[in-house]
Amino acid sequence: MLYEMNEKVIKLEGEGRKIVKFNIGDPDQETPREIVEAAYNALRNGKTKYSSGSGEMKLRQALASIHDVSPDCVVITPGSKWAVFAIMYLLLKNGGNIIIPTPHWTAYELIAKSLGVEVRFLRTRLDSNWQIDVEDLSNLIDGQTKLLILCNPNNPTSIALKEKNLKEIVSTVDEGFTILSDEVYSDISFVKTKSILDFNGDNALVKSFSKTFAMTGWRIGYSVTSKELAEKIVKLNFMSVTNVPVFIQEAAFKALELRAQIAERMREEYRRRADVACRVLSKTRLQFARPDAPFYLFPKYSNLDSERFALNLLNQGVAVTPGTAFGDYREHFRIALTLPEQEISRGLERICRGIEESL
Amino acid sequence: MLYEMNEKVIKLEGEGRKIVKFNIGDPDQETPREIVEAAYNALRNGKTKYSSGSGEMKLRQALASIHDVSPDCVVITPGSKWAVFAIMYLLLKNGGNIIIPTPHWTAYELIAKSLGVEVRFLRTRLDSNWQIDVEDLSNLIDGQTKLLILCNPNNPTSIALKEKNLKEIVSTVDEGFTILSDEVYSDISFVKTKSILDFNGDNALVKSFSKTFAMTGWRIGYSVTSKELAEKIVKLNFMSVTNVPVFIQEAAFKALELRAQIAERMREEYRRRADVACRVLSKTRLQFARPDAPFYLFPKYSNLDSERFALNLLNQGVAVTPGTAFGDYREHFRIALTLPEQEISRGLERICRGIEESL
Repeated sequence: MLYEMNEKVIKLEGEGRKIVKFNIGDPDQETPREIVEAAYNALRNGKTKYSSGSGEMKLRQALASIHDVSPDCVVITPGSKWAVFAIMYLLLKNGGNIIIPTPHWTAYELIAKSLGVEVRFLRTRLDSNWQIDVEDLSNLIDGQTKLLILCNPNNPTSIALKEKNLKEIVSTVDEGFTILSDEVYSDISFVKTKSILDFNGDNALVKSFSKTFAMTGWRIGYSVTSKELAEKIVKLNFMSVTNVPVFIQEAAFKALELRAQIAERMREEYRRRADVACRVLSKTRLQFARPDAPFYLFPKYSNLDSERFALNLLNQGVAVTPGTAFGDYREHFRIALTLPEQEISRGLERICRGIEESL
Repeated sequence: MLYEMNEKVIKLEGEGRKIVKFNIGDPDQETPREIVEAAYNALRNGKTKYSSGSGEMKLRQALASIHDVSPDCVVITPGSKWAVFAIMYLLLKNGGNIIIPTPHWTAYELIAKSLGVEVRFLRTRLDSNWQIDVEDLSNLIDGQTKLLILCNPNNPTSIALKEKNLKEIVSTVDEGFTILSDEVYSDISFVKTKSILDFNGDNALVKSFSKTFAMTGWRIGYSVTSKELAEKIVKLNFMSVTNVPVFIQEAAFKALELRAQIAERMREEYRRRADVACRVLSKTRLQFARPDAPFYLFPKYSNLDSERFALNLLNQGVAVTPGTAFGDYREHFRIALTLPEQEISRGLERICRGIEESL
């Protein structure tokens, strides 16, 4: 329903309708000008040739130093989604199952299904502030489990796993298989979050320049894995995507130079938006957890049929994503706060009215 | 040996060695300035957001009109290699075998191996001017054959399949399975070549902006397939690479506007280089076919061990690719004419001396 909803929105906009888009995690901000200029400079300097499947060494070194790993462990990828695809493709080649806590980003499940991989869903709940029950986790693991995918902070809940919970998870897995942690929201998180790389184990991280730097459409992310897995990803790159354009890597390198200030600006902007949204929603009977990070809220309304609700709402010019796009969460829906503050309050009020009408 | 050779070259250059690089099909020309400016304009106009997995409609329409198909059949991909990967991934999911005429571009075989697909090689020979023997083809086909991959004009031979040969191939396959034709060199071919789309059948085309417009590092290509297969490629894009950056698609759109003049300029440049190369090589005992297209020559020297030869030559500062990178062609090696004319004659003379020494 995530991508279908977006296609519907694009279609309506094509017909000239104005839609308030709470449905997609694409920042409304422009990519900072310095980053655009860095790309242009690189283009003018002929950085338009084939390059290494692992990425440019200077960018890998900069990332390696941020994460305190060897550059050999870092691979630049056309988006963090490609890194997830690559890792799942490589680790599940000879069969096996994976565990995905829900609610979950649609792409994980789509990739697994496409690869013919068995998925075991691990339900988390608003009541437990979306933390993972390690007994539930333990019950899902067997000798064929190859991967646990964490999204931390989470899309769609925007809740981070507490350090204690992460510790429990890591010791439950106990190096039996890879934990893949998707931490694309961590740099602009409102709270301090722990990375999977802070723990021992053969774990993998994927991150992106998309959210922190408003660079979604540039398609650049990276993975940090064991050296062995990194080499396999590079080989897969060579036979598929080849390399991320070097001029895009130059832009990303500039983004890292400006990281502290850009991340701070983005964080504060989204914190304000989240405050506004929480204020509006707390006046309603919607239940929700106060977000730890951008961009989402994932409120619940008892007995809501969120698919019908989302379609009705779309007819009124407001797009949200039904909870069913993220697993078995019919009473929930996702709001992406990727709109300017004024539009957020107005849009949310229409959502609140919509809920009353839909019941 | 194709990618290994390139890694060796990169390593030597890193050590400060000057290498005459005949080993890689990456044009030495800069991407035309108008194309670079089109990308920059798009960047400044905020074309930095997520977009459609099928590509921008205006670019697809322009390509559809060139190939006289519906835009629904066209998908923009991060390089034509990704299109090959996607098509093989999608068509061979439930098993089957594929047929690859040799000598062949390394990537086809690497992709197939990675996907666990059975490859049946179909040998072609210099003696037959690298045309396909349809009886040999017929003998390889069985009920499990899902794909025949043509590279036309071919890498590494630069020879095009004659219209008569193509007709025979198409009628041998007789719509029993998909013919995937990689025609990335066709727009700058020295001779008029037929496209697979000129023939009936459920055939697929992949093409690229890389060679015609000196845009290798931009990573943009496309596929033209049945509408049904196109929809599957778009779904795969959504769960992996998402979309080619829109600003790169804008650059490609500008490239198409300038297509006639740029292709003409490139073609004439490579024709001159090919003439120079043929002149030098025809004074030796090397056997070769006069190229129909850029960039390559694939000469043969009886009893040559091309791997040993290529390694020796690299020590003397000249890189070529041994024939074994393209199949069972130990007596051959590939020369990529992606160097300025003066460097070509000088480099080729060192190659000719190298051959005498290596025997």
